[in-house]
Amino acid sequence: MSEIVGTAMLVLLGCGVVANVALTKTKGFNGGFLMVNFGWGLAVFVGVLASYASGAHINPAVTLGLVANGVDEFGMGVAVSPLSIIVYIVGQFIGAFIGATLVWLGYKKHFDETDDGATKLGVFSTAPGIRSTAWNLVTEVIGTFVLVFTVIAFGRAGEAAGLAALGALPVALLVVGIGASLGGPTGYAINPARDLGPRIMHAVLPIRGKASSDWSYSWIPVVGPIIGGLLAGWLAIPLLPVIS
Amino acid sequence: MSEIVGTAMLVLLGCGVVANVALTKTKGFNGGFLMVNFGWGLAVFVGVLASYASGAHINPAVTLGLVANGVDEFGMGVAVSPLSIIVYIVGQFIGAFIGATLVWLGYKKHFDETDDGATKLGVFSTAPGIRSTAWNLVTEVIGTFVLVFTVIAFGRAGEAAGLAALGALPVALLVVGIGASLGGPTGYAINPARDLGPRIMHAVLPIRGKASSDWSYSWIPVVGPIIGGLLAGWLAIPLLPVIS
Amino acid sequence: MSEIVGTAMLVLLGCGVVANVALTKTKGFNGGFLMVNFGWGLAVFVGVLASYASGAHINPAVTLGLVANGVDEFGMGVAVSPLSIIVYIVGQFIGAFIGATLVWLGYKKHFDETDDGATKLGVFSTAPGIRSTAWNLVTEVIGTFVLVFTVIAFGRAGEAAGLAALGALPVALLVVGIGASLGGPTGYAINPARDLGPRIMHAVLPIRGKASSDWSYSWIPVVGPIIGGLLAGWLAIPLLPVIS
Amino acid sequence: MSEIVGTAMLVLLGCGVVANVALTKTKGFNGGFLMVNFGWGLAVFVGVLASYASGAHINPAVTLGLVANGVDEFGMGVAVSPLSIIVYIVGQFIGAFIGATLVWLGYKKHFDETDDGATKLGVFSTAPGIRSTAWNLVTEVIGTFVLVFTVIAFGRAGEAAGLAALGALPVALLVVGIGASLGGPTGYAINPARDLGPRIMHAVLPIRGKASSDWSYSWIPVVGPIIGGLLAGWLAIPLLPVIS
Repeated sequence: MSEIVGTAMLVLLGCGVVANVALTKTKGFNGGFLMVNFGWGLAVFVGVLASYASGAHINPAVTLGLVANGVDEFGMGVAVSPLSIIVYIVGQFIGAFIGATLVWLGYKKHFDETDDGATKLGVFSTAPGIRSTAWNLVTEVIGTFVLVFTVIAFGRAGEAAGLAALGALPVALLVVGIGASLGGPTGYAINPARDLGPRIMHAVLPIRGKASSDWSYSWIPVVGPIIGGLLAGWLAIPLLPVIS
Repeated sequence: MSEIVGTAMLVLLGCGVVANVALTKTKGFNGGFLMVNFGWGLAVFVGVLASYASGAHINPAVTLGLVANGVDEFGMGVAVSPLSIIVYIVGQFIGAFIGATLVWLGYKKHFDETDDGATKLGVFSTAPGIRSTAWNLVTEVIGTFVLVFTVIAFGRAGEAAGLAALGALPVALLVVGIGASLGGPTGYAINPARDLGPRIMHAVLPIRGKASSDWSYSWIPVVGPIIGGLLAGWLAIPLLPVIS
Repeated sequence: MSEIVGTAMLVLLGCGVVANVALTKTKGFNGGFLMVNFGWGLAVFVGVLASYASGAHINPAVTLGLVANGVDEFGMGVAVSPLSIIVYIVGQFIGAFIGATLVWLGYKKHFDETDDGATKLGVFSTAPGIRSTAWNLVTEVIGTFVLVFTVIAFGRAGEAAGLAALGALPVALLVVGIGASLGGPTGYAINPARDLGPRIMHAVLPIRGKASSDWSYSWIPVVGPIIGGLLAGWLAIPLLPVIS
Repeated sequence: MSEIVGTAMLVLLGCGVVANVALTKTKGFNGGFLMVNFGWGLAVFVGVLASYASGAHINPAVTLGLVANGVDEFGMGVAVSPLSIIVYIVGQFIGAFIGATLVWLGYKKHFDETDDGATKLGVFSTAPGIRSTAWNLVTEVIGTFVLVFTVIAFGRAGEAAGLAALGALPVALLVVGIGASLGGPTGYAINPARDLGPRIMHAVLPIRGKASSDWSYSWIPVVGPIIGGLLAGWLAIPLLPVIS
């Protein structure tokens, strides 16, 4: 299942850049938010390249948004069905588990030597700058809406120009942009598998000196992206004309 | 009207990156001017992708510059006429209103917790580093000239090479470059809708603790870009040969 | 002459980013060397797009390197001859004069309010970190060699893949890379017109409180790039095979 | 042998950016880890462009990974054989020697004026943030696995879309991403020639005030990348389907 490989790459490189910027004694310590934005964007780039065979969703919000948009197939001949939706989302979570574990192994000694438990959780999952259930949810809905809406727009613009859409670079740049512009309040999960998957691994793995996994916040970066993705899929129908 | 959607995306992501860098308790606080440049460039990227159906102007200075250049249609079959010019510009302002409102909602708690009123206005609209009516106008004219002239040059270079010009990435990079190089004195509005639209919303929205909307400066980032766009459209006729 | 327009854009945006980072009260003040690298790279991007009609040299070292490499024409049907070489180089210098003047106008008030004369010269021309005639020359030779050699390599790789080489983006990225990697000792002129042209304008323009134009150093960023360009043109003949 | 030219460019620009950020009195001093990431990424970009004729490996881990993946030829008609493998790897090391020497010459005065010997070695070769034979090896294995696996995935995605893969830009972005995300613990050698080649030159060249060449660590950035490359080549066979 190519979604597993792609999401593993996404989470490995995405959580990896946070580890590099946040954990002690790394080369990239304190490297700045723009470095995190580029790291996550290029994580998407690699994840998309590695999962071309399944249409490169690597995000349940994208999968559900495409369903809401009414697509017939997920790319490379996989038909949309309740079963294929479940297979995609399960694959994305398995990939996220693998990627999060590899980040922990790759930065093992730096996790050990970092004291603050919240910093360690921050490598795996997002946390808001200011806690507010309603507004944190709004931010995640907007961010994911932009992601899924633009993915669909890009596909249509490509069709209009007669191009087959490879799309790894545009999607990567899109995620750099969403992170820089809309990541300020909540750290832009915009992907339920990217946030909940590593959070589960944070709870499961024997990380030295770890803090709580912040379950009370954990549902926001799941529900917000799902709402945003569905809204984008529905609104793209009237807002993005098909040009032939 | 696809200009509405594109300009909404432009302003949402463009003003969003300023919010992230300027407002208190965000993840990107104090992220630097290069991060603002990339954020605005990628805002253009997303805005252009979302408005392919109307030719992706998302800027009255581009619309007017193309008219001055003597184009016959605005892309995707929309003929140039006084009515279509007005429809485009009205659409761009409506989009800017929507985008500015979404930025406020997405960063709601951070607006609430930021004390300085000028910082809050700075998320919506530009302000000069050194106030000087004449020289601020000159800077905006030069910046917009480079924008519109290069957009036209890119179209012609593409024709010369036999390419259909999708153009979202080149235009995005162009705006990163204009921001880094010519954004120092005035913060590079280079787009009347991008500056006046959010400024109007700043006046209208119930933003807690907001300052004045700086109306005395507000005409410069409207008039400067219009002059720059028109100059670019006219000068591109002799300076950019059509190669067949 | 499209080389004039292209080199004017190059110098306007290239010297512009230095002005933004170096002059007082700008938005990008103290923005860092990576911002300068991206600014110059995107200046090349815009300059190449604006000068497609002449083959987009915008650099005498590129013109001479292509001659040394034995090309028959400069792109778009301009034959190589002593006259056309002179016309290209004269055009590049005229463009550099125009671009440098526009930077001064765009940042006029910030030049006025900056005290240090060396900072003002630094917007126009390069100066070494450690003065050393021999080693500064070596650095400029190496940097320009990489530039011209890779430009030729890119053309050949494109031919091998059956592509028409538009090339604005690759050349822009190349210049970002040369700046980041080889710009440390001398500030990477790698282009005689880019350095001597603005230096002449620095001497000519009535800039308030300006310092000397540092003529004793001025020949190094002219001679070094010419040597590097010629070496690249010659060595590319045996080192870069033509694949058909 | 085009691998020599490509790897020389890679090491010249790659070690060059470290020199710019680390050595005293350079323009890019203290430029940050993101600048190093972009510098190395663009070094790969230039190296790949300059070595198109040999398939642009410029890394023994890529060469061995492709062999493990079962490719028939290395690009541009070079058949895979024990001899061609040895020729490629020897060429890569010769290129690394040349590139490292050019970095030293280009930054000669700055090497002379830098006091700390470990900083000078750091321009040539990697060193871990926290020394740990096992975990440093794990990090290099993971980083190189991502590199080689994605290179192969990119080739297959390109085939699926009917594209000839030029690939310089994607590979460059991939290396920016690996550096930002996985470079924290060991400084991402991910290439035996890139690390051991310059380390040998560090020992050989008459660098003023140099420290030890840290031979006790030197085998990790050779063995780790070889393991990672081979693993990637093997695992790509089942994980990356060929789509026709």
